[in-house]
Amino acid sequence: MPTFPPTDHTRIRRLPKRGSYERDTIYAILDEALICHVGFVDQGRPFVIPINFARLGDSIVLHGALDSRLLKHIAAGNEVCLEVALVDGLVLARSVFHHSVNYRSVVLFGHGRLVDDPQEKIAALQAITDHLIPGRWQEARLPNTKELNATLVVAIDIADASAKVRSGGPVDDEADYDLPVWAGVLPLAVTPLAPERDERLGEDIPLPGYVAKYSRK
Amino acid sequence: MPTFPPTDHTRIRRLPKRGSYERDTIYAILDEALICHVGFVDQGRPFVIPINFARLGDSIVLHGALDSRLLKHIAAGNEVCLEVALVDGLVLARSVFHHSVNYRSVVLFGHGRLVDDPQEKIAALQAITDHLIPGRWQEARLPNTKELNATLVVAIDIADASAKVRSGGPVDDEADYDLPVWAGVLPLAVTPLAPERDERLGEDIPLPGYVAKYSRK
Repeated sequence: MPTFPPTDHTRIRRLPKRGSYERDTIYAILDEALICHVGFVDQGRPFVIPINFARLGDSIVLHGALDSRLLKHIAAGNEVCLEVALVDGLVLARSVFHHSVNYRSVVLFGHGRLVDDPQEKIAALQAITDHLIPGRWQEARLPNTKELNATLVVAIDIADASAKVRSGGPVDDEADYDLPVWAGVLPLAVTPLAPERDERLGEDIPLPGYVAKYSRK
Repeated sequence: MPTFPPTDHTRIRRLPKRGSYERDTIYAILDEALICHVGFVDQGRPFVIPINFARLGDSIVLHGALDSRLLKHIAAGNEVCLEVALVDGLVLARSVFHHSVNYRSVVLFGHGRLVDDPQEKIAALQAITDHLIPGRWQEARLPNTKELNATLVVAIDIADASAKVRSGGPVDDEADYDLPVWAGVLPLAVTPLAPERDERLGEDIPLPGYVAKYSRK
């Protein structure tokens, strides 16, 4: 399906023109985000944990240590809410009231499951590695049996999802346009700084292209 | 108190050496983060919403429209979990297994309340504006009565909080150091791009210093 039909808990109520249920829009935001924020309920209380992730088809995959409370909770089949947010810029209006943030966010819901099929587990780990650093899986030493056994992998099959996007400049009250106050957008981006070589790295090993040209877009 | 005593739900179980309960550490991370991720429970289900915010003393303040479901839930006194995460870099090890992310995150818990005292409400709005763009409150047109009445402000008094920090280079298995695989850290930062002037802005209005020199640190 090209869209996730809005449900009672994904329908965008505030500023619905900013909302989208388009699969392509939602997946592009998920794929650009470095980390996600996973919400779950434990004994009636809310928890939110940041974690890296990948989208694998219509599922989100997460990995970590065998004793991770978050992952065990997800592996047990509980429902989670997973959110990502990209901040694209600060919107400076002439009035404080109309200040805003340009962003792209996704909120999705689904039930968790353990990934124990060996092929799906490897595919999930490859997706998580290549989500963070595309190309890295082809070069680094792949997981051995001991490492695979020490890694818990879980999936969340996306049941409902929505995106919310704000872009463009400030919208001021008509009377405020004459104020002598700077207005516009300060775009923000996640950018790589100079790579730092490991101190034990041989001098003959060059910087890979996927590090030199790293970009989230 | 200089520290938040660890509780059953803030104690760092995984890799406890990465954990901190120091107020200064926690508050510095909160103050640097542009947005936070608020988790709450509604009818037994988890929800996570991204929103901008500010720390005001030992509280977190949020604002939005009167009909915001998130803010109404918080104003009603419900417990929330609020999380922020700063991604500082990608850690490339020689093995896939030892890849990591350098990050600083905070998870905190507290019950919400409505901010309806006029002085506290203005202080919260100033904090939120100056959190996003330090100096902006001094220059933009301040909220009038109509705008104040159209804005819902809530606070979360921080009851428990913990930080988690990973920094530094990769740690590989001893046997892997001879592999011909580039290893190190790719630092990432949120950086401003060229400011975009509003198309209706008078040409005589210069770019303010707090925009020209904007930085999150």
